[in-house]
Order: sequence, then structure tokens, then C-alpha cells
Amino acid sequence: MPEPTAKRLAVALPLTVRFAETDAMGIVHHSNYVVWFEAGRIAFLEAVGYPYPQLAARGFAFAVTDLHIRYRSAARFGGQVIVHSELVEVRSRGCRFHYQVRQADTDTLLAEGETAHICVDRDGRARCMPTELQSLLQSSAVRIGS
Amino acid sequence: MPEPTAKRLAVALPLTVRFAETDAMGIVHHSNYVVWFEAGRIAFLEAVGYPYPQLAARGFAFAVTDLHIRYRSAARFGGQVIVHSELVEVRSRGCRFHYQVRQADTDTLLAEGETAHICVDRDGRARCMPTELQSLLQSSAVRIGS
Amino acid sequence: MPEPTAKRLAVALPLTVRFAETDAMGIVHHSNYVVWFEAGRIAFLEAVGYPYPQLAARGFAFAVTDLHIRYRSAARFGGQVIVHSELVEVRSRGCRFHYQVRQADTDTLLAEGETAHICVDRDGRARCMPTELQSLLQSSAVRIGS
Amino acid sequence: MPEPTAKRLAVALPLTVRFAETDAMGIVHHSNYVVWFEAGRIAFLEAVGYPYPQLAARGFAFAVTDLHIRYRSAARFGGQVIVHSELVEVRSRGCRFHYQVRQADTDTLLAEGETAHICVDRDGRARCMPTELQSLLQSSAVRIGS
Repeated sequence: MPEPTAKRLAVALPLTVRFAETDAMGIVHHSNYVVWFEAGRIAFLEAVGYPYPQLAARGFAFAVTDLHIRYRSAARFGGQVIVHSELVEVRSRGCRFHYQVRQADTDTLLAEGETAHICVDRDGRARCMPTELQSLLQSSAVRIGS
Repeated sequence: MPEPTAKRLAVALPLTVRFAETDAMGIVHHSNYVVWFEAGRIAFLEAVGYPYPQLAARGFAFAVTDLHIRYRSAARFGGQVIVHSELVEVRSRGCRFHYQVRQADTDTLLAEGETAHICVDRDGRARCMPTELQSLLQSSAVRIGS
Repeated sequence: MPEPTAKRLAVALPLTVRFAETDAMGIVHHSNYVVWFEAGRIAFLEAVGYPYPQLAARGFAFAVTDLHIRYRSAARFGGQVIVHSELVEVRSRGCRFHYQVRQADTDTLLAEGETAHICVDRDGRARCMPTELQSLLQSSAVRIGS
Repeated sequence: MPEPTAKRLAVALPLTVRFAETDAMGIVHHSNYVVWFEAGRIAFLEAVGYPYPQLAARGFAFAVTDLHIRYRSAARFGGQVIVHSELVEVRSRGCRFHYQVRQADTDTLLAEGETAHICVDRDGRARCMPTELQSLLQSSAVRIGS
């Protein structure tokens, strides 16, 4: 009997492209997707009920250890984009997110990518994330084979 | 008898325009001059012998309270600019800088402006700056009428 | 008989503070207010019915000639701010905006300021703005003494 | 008889960390490495004798199609970093760069990564890069097995 398809939480964050985010090619500079991924990730944590500022207030942070972006189509000023963020892996000391940035009106894929994180304390040392956060994340992550 | 011309320390910081600093108008986005002023101010403090990281290590910072920029001519990618920074006022709890950003090859004035600062501690409260720093700054500032 | 109070259009743009906008002082870096003002200005043009991308498509831009910001209180990550933008002067070749950035939940004033603009063509030459835009702007600007 | 070791051109670009590049974790925000890679890439093209502004003037650009960064250690305000850029692949319509960002004083590896590019015209269409540029790049790239 086939298992039901795993439910995966994807949080969608709409962003208006800022003029300051464009470059002399007339398109959004590729560095801004890193900032958009981060905004998507923070919206994700907010959606699962553990806002990032709360993590920071407890002296923890999710340091970025790996970033990969594949650019598909240019974003332009005057449009709105949607950052879709999913958690694809959770461990006691880290996690990994997947992102898609899409044009809001046409749903065209502009870029997709991943970030990997380790949980660190104020001195930058790897630490286990708060148990409550780990539980919240695990229940929202993609459950492969479940 | 004519007064001797006041000696004024102006620190020149050359910067290569980054492509990421351009916008869809094909010129440097106006927000980057704020970052260039800051880089010029930090080069100034380095030049007078009290590097900003040393100030930060002692728990102080120069919070910006006022910023004024007059844009004269556009900076473009592929050029080099020079940020000229001068200290124009020093008080126990604050100071004021003046800046000129010039095209390196032609000396064309691209922008000029001022920033005002108060010295704050780690909690953001106004504090007197370290005495040694105040002395160093006062000896480098413009002495009007001296 | 008292004059009726001039009707002034103020457009409010809510923005979520991005982590990337913070600096090592733990607050929003002061350069980001320049970007927030711009976002507010663009929201204003959208609200009066002449979106900035439409201006750009016709070969015009509002080059910034003057920028003034007074910082009152620090913005922090985890909060939402509201950028209030008003047009305070309109001429055939330029205009001037006033801004207030306020904490969304407490209405605390974080910063206020002004920008001055000239209308330029694709080659950066000063030009009269499209008549239709000038009319729209004039009907939305503050009318002093009216 | 052993082959001579392939000669690989690595261009080193020193950069002073800007305060504006830090974030509330007290370290350089991870998005800035994308800008630093770009600055390194542009210094590379300058070093091989085909400055990027010259490419842009001929109506071409190197659009970024892929970006990968592995973060090893945090960069901090007050230090200087060196961006080492190498060209690792050249094709008629694109190329790939490898980067290392190192702490200037200690040579500590802070981050490394790659970017992939396609040559595009002003309308964003993939095009063969100018022959002269392709030759210059090929003579500077890593020659595997040579």
C-alpha cells in the first residue's frame, strides 16, 4: 500500500523589487538573491512559530556554511517576486533550506538554490539548537520516505 | 598681519567603483556614497592614529545622527574615485565630518556632504569619547580663525 | 474665516527589517534609510498613478541631487518599519520629497529626511518631466497657504 | 618524463572590510562575498588585459548562471582580506571562475567558491564572446593535463 505523499511546508514571501537592487545591466544584481533567500528563511522560521529574533535573543544564530544559487531568468525593477522557502534537512546542530524565486505575475522561475547552516552561540561555536526549535523544524521539514 | 592659514588634515581614500554599486540608470546608486563616506571616515581615524576597531573594542561607537549629501555628477563603473574626509568639529560627545568624492583621473567633484556623530556605548547611550581620542581629533580638525 | 487645512498626500509603505540590513552595532546600518526612502518614493509615485517603471520606460529618471537624513532612534532586526513619504515641492524639471521612518508597533520616529530630484533623460540631461506626471504630482503635493 | 606543472594565473585583490559589510552577528554578512567574488573577477579581467568596462562598451556582459560559496571562517571589520581569482574553464559562450577569500595577515581561508557565466548581449541573449577576449582568457586559464 503506497504511503501518502509527505507533506512539505513551503513558505511564500512576496517581495517588491527595489530600484537599489538593480545594476547597470538593467536587471537585479545577482547578490540580492542571497538577501532574498535570507528573508525567505526568516519568514519560514516565523511561520513555524520560532521567529529568528527569538533564536538570537537566546544567544544562538544560524551561521551560513554553504550557499548555492542557479540563476534562470533575470528579475527586473517594477515587478514583484515570491521567495518560496522549504526546509530540506534538520540535524541537532544544523539544517538546510531550499529556495525558489519566482516572478509573481507569471510564476516564471528566476532562481533556485540552497543554503546550509550550523547553529552557533555568541562566540561562533557550533552548538545544538534549542530542542523546541529542532522539534518544530523537524515537523515542518520534508520527510523523505515517510 | 594676515593669520596663518589653518592646517586642516584631509585624508584621501581611493576606491575602485564596484559593478554591484551601479543601478539600472547605468551609474553608481546614490546610497553607496553613504558607505563611501563611512569608509573615508574610518580611513581618517586610522590616519590620526586611533583606528575605529580600537574604539569599538573599548565599547564605543560613533552613531550617525545627521547625514547630508549633495550629488554633483554621476560616478560610473570602471572608474576610480577618491573620498576626501575632513573633521570639521569635535566635542566631548561627538564630532562632524565633511567629505568630497572626486573622480580619480579628472578630479571632477561627484558629491560632497557631511555627517554628524555622537559617541555612544554598547547600550546606545551618549558618552564622552575617550580623552586620548578627543585630543587626537582636536589636533587634526579644522581650526577656524586660529 | 479660517482656511481649510491643506490636504497632503502621505503614502505609507510598511517594510520588514532585513537581517542583511543590520551592522555590527546590532542595529540597522544608516545607509539603508536611503534605500527605504527610495522605496517610499516609488510607492508614492505608484499611489498617484504614475509608477516609476512607466517613467523609466519613457526614457526619464528622477536623479537624486540632494539627500538629508536626521537619525532619531535605531531600527532593529525583528521589527517592522513604516516609511511615510510626501511630496513637498514640484517644478517642471524637479521635485522634493519628505520622509519619516517610524517603528510600526510603537510609531516611534526612527529617522526623517528629504530628497531633491531633477528629471533627466537617458543621457543624464535635465529635462521637463512629462506634463501628465507634473499634473499628478502637483495635485498630490502639499499646498502651502491654500 | 613528468609534464611541467600547468601555469595557472591567480589574481589577488586586497580589500579592506567595510563596516557597512558587517551584520548584527558582528561578522561580515555572507552576501558580501558575492560582491567580493565579482570584484576579484573584474580584477582578473583587468589583469589579463581585457577590462570588463571594455566588454560592456562593446555591448556584452558576463551574466552569472551559477554561484557556489563555502564559508569556512568569519571575516570581521578591521581586517583586510585578499580575493584570489582564477579562471577554471573557458568556452566560446561562457566561462567559470574559482575564488578563495583569505585573511590578509594570517592567510586563513575565509571562503571559497565558484561562479559560472554566459556571455550575453544587451538584450540578454547568449552570444559568443569577442574572439580576442576568448584567446586572452584561454591563455590564462588552468590547463588541465597539459
